[in-house]
Amino acid sequence: MTPPTTGLPAENTTDNNDHLVQSDNPEHPANLIPSLCAKFWTLGWVTGTGGGASIRDDDLVYLAPSGVQKELMKPSDIYVLSLAAQAQSLSRRQRVYLRSPPIYKPSQCTPLFLAAFTKRNAGCCIHTHSHWAVLVTLILEQQGSKEFRINNIEQIKGFGKGFQKSGNLGYHDTLVIPVIENTAHEEDLTEFLEEAMDKYPDTYAVLVRRHGVYVWGDNVHKAKTQCESLDYLFQLAVEMKQLGLPWITDIEPTIPTRKD
Amino acid sequence: MTPPTTGLPAENTTDNNDHLVQSDNPEHPANLIPSLCAKFWTLGWVTGTGGGASIRDDDLVYLAPSGVQKELMKPSDIYVLSLAAQAQSLSRRQRVYLRSPPIYKPSQCTPLFLAAFTKRNAGCCIHTHSHWAVLVTLILEQQGSKEFRINNIEQIKGFGKGFQKSGNLGYHDTLVIPVIENTAHEEDLTEFLEEAMDKYPDTYAVLVRRHGVYVWGDNVHKAKTQCESLDYLFQLAVEMKQLGLPWITDIEPTIPTRKD
Amino acid sequence: MTPPTTGLPAENTTDNNDHLVQSDNPEHPANLIPSLCAKFWTLGWVTGTGGGASIRDDDLVYLAPSGVQKELMKPSDIYVLSLAAQAQSLSRRQRVYLRSPPIYKPSQCTPLFLAAFTKRNAGCCIHTHSHWAVLVTLILEQQGSKEFRINNIEQIKGFGKGFQKSGNLGYHDTLVIPVIENTAHEEDLTEFLEEAMDKYPDTYAVLVRRHGVYVWGDNVHKAKTQCESLDYLFQLAVEMKQLGLPWITDIEPTIPTRKD
Amino acid sequence: MTPPTTGLPAENTTDNNDHLVQSDNPEHPANLIPSLCAKFWTLGWVTGTGGGASIRDDDLVYLAPSGVQKELMKPSDIYVLSLAAQAQSLSRRQRVYLRSPPIYKPSQCTPLFLAAFTKRNAGCCIHTHSHWAVLVTLILEQQGSKEFRINNIEQIKGFGKGFQKSGNLGYHDTLVIPVIENTAHEEDLTEFLEEAMDKYPDTYAVLVRRHGVYVWGDNVHKAKTQCESLDYLFQLAVEMKQLGLPWITDIEPTIPTRKD
Repeated sequence: MTPPTTGLPAENTTDNNDHLVQSDNPEHPANLIPSLCAKFWTLGWVTGTGGGASIRDDDLVYLAPSGVQKELMKPSDIYVLSLAAQAQSLSRRQRVYLRSPPIYKPSQCTPLFLAAFTKRNAGCCIHTHSHWAVLVTLILEQQGSKEFRINNIEQIKGFGKGFQKSGNLGYHDTLVIPVIENTAHEEDLTEFLEEAMDKYPDTYAVLVRRHGVYVWGDNVHKAKTQCESLDYLFQLAVEMKQLGLPWITDIEPTIPTRKD
Repeated sequence: MTPPTTGLPAENTTDNNDHLVQSDNPEHPANLIPSLCAKFWTLGWVTGTGGGASIRDDDLVYLAPSGVQKELMKPSDIYVLSLAAQAQSLSRRQRVYLRSPPIYKPSQCTPLFLAAFTKRNAGCCIHTHSHWAVLVTLILEQQGSKEFRINNIEQIKGFGKGFQKSGNLGYHDTLVIPVIENTAHEEDLTEFLEEAMDKYPDTYAVLVRRHGVYVWGDNVHKAKTQCESLDYLFQLAVEMKQLGLPWITDIEPTIPTRKD
Repeated sequence: MTPPTTGLPAENTTDNNDHLVQSDNPEHPANLIPSLCAKFWTLGWVTGTGGGASIRDDDLVYLAPSGVQKELMKPSDIYVLSLAAQAQSLSRRQRVYLRSPPIYKPSQCTPLFLAAFTKRNAGCCIHTHSHWAVLVTLILEQQGSKEFRINNIEQIKGFGKGFQKSGNLGYHDTLVIPVIENTAHEEDLTEFLEEAMDKYPDTYAVLVRRHGVYVWGDNVHKAKTQCESLDYLFQLAVEMKQLGLPWITDIEPTIPTRKD
Repeated sequence: MTPPTTGLPAENTTDNNDHLVQSDNPEHPANLIPSLCAKFWTLGWVTGTGGGASIRDDDLVYLAPSGVQKELMKPSDIYVLSLAAQAQSLSRRQRVYLRSPPIYKPSQCTPLFLAAFTKRNAGCCIHTHSHWAVLVTLILEQQGSKEFRINNIEQIKGFGKGFQKSGNLGYHDTLVIPVIENTAHEEDLTEFLEEAMDKYPDTYAVLVRRHGVYVWGDNVHKAKTQCESLDYLFQLAVEMKQLGLPWITDIEPTIPTRKD
């Protein structure tokens, strides 16, 4: 067993640790990332090898590689990284993989996924190129805005209240998603994503102008629910815009009158 | 066998009655709810754990739980409730489940599904967050309207004439679906849904502003047919609005001239 | 074996002829109609039990029943009718089935399918409620038009030149599809469909205002190709309308200059 | 074994070479073309037998036949042609097939696929009738334009820099796709496609007005990635047009400030 000959150097590994991506359990991250990405492909979220997903299981981070057809990914295509080992690395940009696939390179999304794991203790992070997300950033760009805001839509309840808070947003709450500007190199988004996390400590998503969205959650279930809910809201928002309907409204709460 | 440790207290059960959700028959409600919801997920009706479906088989009501990924639901995730036992409960808000899943909580949609079963003798009720339904309620909101009305479209024939009436609506009939305002807590919709049922005794559906739609029928077949037909009409209505075409028209019936 | 107890009376049958719908061959009409309709359901053509398909194999006509969920249909749901026996029937409206399913009623589309088989020698006829078709008829209604016309689109080549003509339409040809007005009862469309066939002898399709479209072809392959091509053109036409682009243009042919 | 009795004459073959399309390997071109086309059908790219795909493996070119339902194609439907043998043919229009399917005719797309293989050394070429592609050509026609141009969208990175160049386009680069006018006969497009290749040496795609798009790549992976990315951009462009958003913008690059 020799170190991988492609991808970033894995100098600290003496073994490619293929056992880390071999499991009969469909819920194992190395199986779940391919099955999730295949599903996301049907939604148009990861077209043309764009987008991806990463899962953290305690210290281990499982990552889709760069340039893979997302609906055809296999467990053997997955990178595995140790957060603890990464923290001891001298360089933020140099990453040490416990396990690397034989033919792919690491994804440029890697540091963005790591930001969600280390700064927000997320268990899963999804990156989509959904054209609804891109259209929302384009509409906001015309308005000179760096925030997507929508309220009084039931699906908003799909979002948690924020980092280390319990419960979900309510129907009348305003969901606020920050927008960062795109950079020429995806890795360079990392500092802006981290800044947005600092400025919006309760957000579970960051839009990237003319690019897509990063959405995370405490676990796969919550990340997927929030990513689906957000894409639903982006689609609704674009259609509301086409129909001349505002995203923010001032609605008086409806109070039920009968009580048990 | 011990009572479930999550969900509302099931104080009257000494056994979790798992046999109620175990069957080899794909038409058994505990199998049918997951397969229907998986199909509805592909239609965008139950995105991000929103929406759901419930089936009544005589006295027993089968319910999807709260917060489950609808395309991944399993029969073992299903709640079962007795209408007769429920009717004897002291509180409308306290529900007594014959069978509860081990890890989920009851859905807030439960009392709304029960309203269709008890007030309309429905055999199945479907709740969707379809964005076509939400867009229709937004368009009507701008018009200050609390009713969706459309006529002279063939698909209207997919609807029954009304509770305890035989036959279906005709092509020239006007389909009228009431809209109720959304509430902060989904359970609080119940009284408004029931009011709408009283005011529109023949409707098989109630739109919920900025939220979605509840659709029911005498059995699964009729509920699904009406829900699909309604979503088709909502989509058509939004597209007609975008093209400047009116939902209500005054068309002179076309009379065939040749007879046998 | 007794005659079916539902559906129109099958007085001339002493046997339900179930063998007519039992075959291991996936290309047998009784297998093909369900698999085609399941595919059409995913395209939104047969939502809410609307629409359908019929195949003629020499003298035998295979028909989907009324009110069946089109993606769930089974070979045992299929009606079979003899064209020769039908021609000897005293009444155009009374139909004699060689084989009837045990629980469904005959489709109101039956005489319309028969018109394509008897007047055009078609081998297959498809009826969709595609909302693109309905939107096209609504746009034309506003223009006071009873014809859909489009030219200079490559997909027009998907259509044959007409009844008993060889070859397909060319890129510069204008595809003309007549529109008939909808009637309260679907069977009553028959005479208007037949009139349209007489007036437009080369058409392979007739639009029905606010209802959908009937498309046929010499065999299943051609009917499916023409139905898909037409739905594609209807979708394109609606989108062109939304973008302010005309359906008919006067384009000078591009002449290639190099020859072998 | 006798030569095929349909299709163009295969006068130089004494054997139909069926072994060329028989393999257990799902990555074999004769298996891959049907599975790719089935996937493309679900995307609306090859509706109504339109569009197609071809793969080159060294000297051998594998081609879908004319008029086949693209989601139902089988390996036995595939044509195989030798580029070397073709180069020695006296006529550009006469093609010599090593292997022909028993019932289909050669596709009129064949010389267009060959142009990508011989002039650009492509390993795969995909032709779609995607209505997004057609709508883009219609929008450009109204503007009197023969070029699709878009910049500052992340998905542009899905494209290579050009023939015999390494690396991909960057986010700020402008993707330029030439548009050629459609001809009455698809084969006649060949010279215009070749002219466009000469004029735009780095393009991996050519739009055909009112028809669709041809996209190629060094291998199946790259052709598919570029075709998906381009369709994504066409869809986005149409939606941007509907929202009044420009395809070309002048954006100042965002410079990251923190460095390792």
